[in-house]
Amino acid sequence: MKKQSERLTTEKIRGQGPKEIFGESAKMHDTSVNTVSKIIFETLTTDFSNLKFRFRDSIDKKEINEKLHSVDSRLGVTLFVEKSSIKPDGGVIEVEDKQGNWRIVLVCEAKHQGKDIENISKGILVGKKGNQELMLAGNAIERSHKNINEIRNIMIDEKHFPYVLFLQGSNFLTEPIKVNRPDGTEVVLQHNIGSLNRLDRLTAANYGLPVNQNNCENIFVSVDEQSVMLQAVSIYAKPTEWAAEEMFTIMWDVACTSLKILGLGFDSAEVAPLVLEMENEGISPNYIDIAGEDETEN
Amino acid sequence: MKKQSERLTTEKIRGQGPKEIFGESAKMHDTSVNTVSKIIFETLTTDFSNLKFRFRDSIDKKEINEKLHSVDSRLGVTLFVEKSSIKPDGGVIEVEDKQGNWRIVLVCEAKHQGKDIENISKGILVGKKGNQELMLAGNAIERSHKNINEIRNIMIDEKHFPYVLFLQGSNFLTEPIKVNRPDGTEVVLQHNIGSLNRLDRLTAANYGLPVNQNNCENIFVSVDEQSVMLQAVSIYAKPTEWAAEEMFTIMWDVACTSLKILGLGFDSAEVAPLVLEMENEGISPNYIDIAGEDETEN
Repeated sequence: MKKQSERLTTEKIRGQGPKEIFGESAKMHDTSVNTVSKIIFETLTTDFSNLKFRFRDSIDKKEINEKLHSVDSRLGVTLFVEKSSIKPDGGVIEVEDKQGNWRIVLVCEAKHQGKDIENISKGILVGKKGNQELMLAGNAIERSHKNINEIRNIMIDEKHFPYVLFLQGSNFLTEPIKVNRPDGTEVVLQHNIGSLNRLDRLTAANYGLPVNQNNCENIFVSVDEQSVMLQAVSIYAKPTEWAAEEMFTIMWDVACTSLKILGLGFDSAEVAPLVLEMENEGISPNYIDIAGEDETEN
Repeated sequence: MKKQSERLTTEKIRGQGPKEIFGESAKMHDTSVNTVSKIIFETLTTDFSNLKFRFRDSIDKKEINEKLHSVDSRLGVTLFVEKSSIKPDGGVIEVEDKQGNWRIVLVCEAKHQGKDIENISKGILVGKKGNQELMLAGNAIERSHKNINEIRNIMIDEKHFPYVLFLQGSNFLTEPIKVNRPDGTEVVLQHNIGSLNRLDRLTAANYGLPVNQNNCENIFVSVDEQSVMLQAVSIYAKPTEWAAEEMFTIMWDVACTSLKILGLGFDSAEVAPLVLEMENEGISPNYIDIAGEDETEN
């Protein structure tokens, strides 16, 4: 374990904010979640130099099956295409624990659905007759549940679920927004109409927890005196493109929650000064709030 | 509870096989899973006349949220479109329990992906240049995970998961099959090539359990001395269309497993003669095997 003074120094460097890490590109909106994920990986490697991390672009179904099979010999016995694998957009970051096992600390995907904001602001009409301002929302986004369920399975024996789903586009409004047509007139896109909003197609993956919050720590509910473990996706939604620094802040928060739950990287003594420093730097210390909660079940 | 003699009489009528129920239409291949599900509903109502059943085409997200919220007040708080609902192809069949609560006994969906068998046998070439015999498999089927996760949530406090997914088409081969071209020459479609098979995109929903088996009874695995409940979909796959009677047999099997796990409709004393009778009638008594297992966890 790195000494606290060293930790706070590297934290402070990071604590200066993603802007310093990204430079001007922080404001650029075409940065992929995969690029940001690799920056998270590098930052973890620097900030927690006592720990070993690895970055992977894909996980073989065979490996997922092996994990399931190790938990119960009935499971994980079916594979049709030998080389089947899953490839989350943002890859997978893992840390080596004290027993030499690789543990997942972050998995990200970013999905775009609904171009109504761009279309309206550019004056592009859509539909079969080319006379509609709004496009009926599609359902491709429902495919996101597949990789979520795969990662749930490979993390079946973990108490955290660091899966972040970034949503972007007019199908994912959480409140009404105003868009200007080229002639300057205003259109209000409502967030609660069925032809436009597709967030409800995804909330099965977070058990109807609020969106835009870190759900990395698993919830245990009690059913008939038996406990049931819930692995909830952290869904983050916005109408327009995610900036690299916005993604970085969220992904860092979730990755640090993972390390905390895994008992790696944080001593409780370190938390208090870190919170103060982060607050001074204007960084939201969400993950420390969560990590600091009693792990009671209900 | 109906008397055993009555039960066996109605069982016997049903035991004569789906052919008698469907008549000639049993062999017709255009019967939808929804139609068969309604026949299952009617048969349940007749066979278990002491129980009350209902059939619904959809479930509101609001109701799913209410269930989640009742289990843990943090859950089920998010709904964007007031009237959001899910509509499994085959609807939802429920039974009223002794406390007057409706409990799900069957949910079915049927999906078709991959028309290579039809195309080859008709000599239709595909692809951009119209010169390919095989079409690169798509990924729309991954959307199936959405409704699976929704039903998992509304059944979060149940010990059974009667979700049947019927798959049909050349993207769901479990073994190689031979197809004849119009000129009589033979093509062998392999089940284990990545450009054709999409079964691996679905097996996250049954934790890699075998396909073509009844997984209605939940599996409990032990993780760190805490038990984790698994709700596995029963996936049934075939290259060609499902006949009504094939679907009926599978759906009946799963619905009866639900009743057994719910402690409704079956006395253990009834099981033995029923097995004998079903075997005489050539009906697979799978659900009785499963229901008869000790409910030990591992």
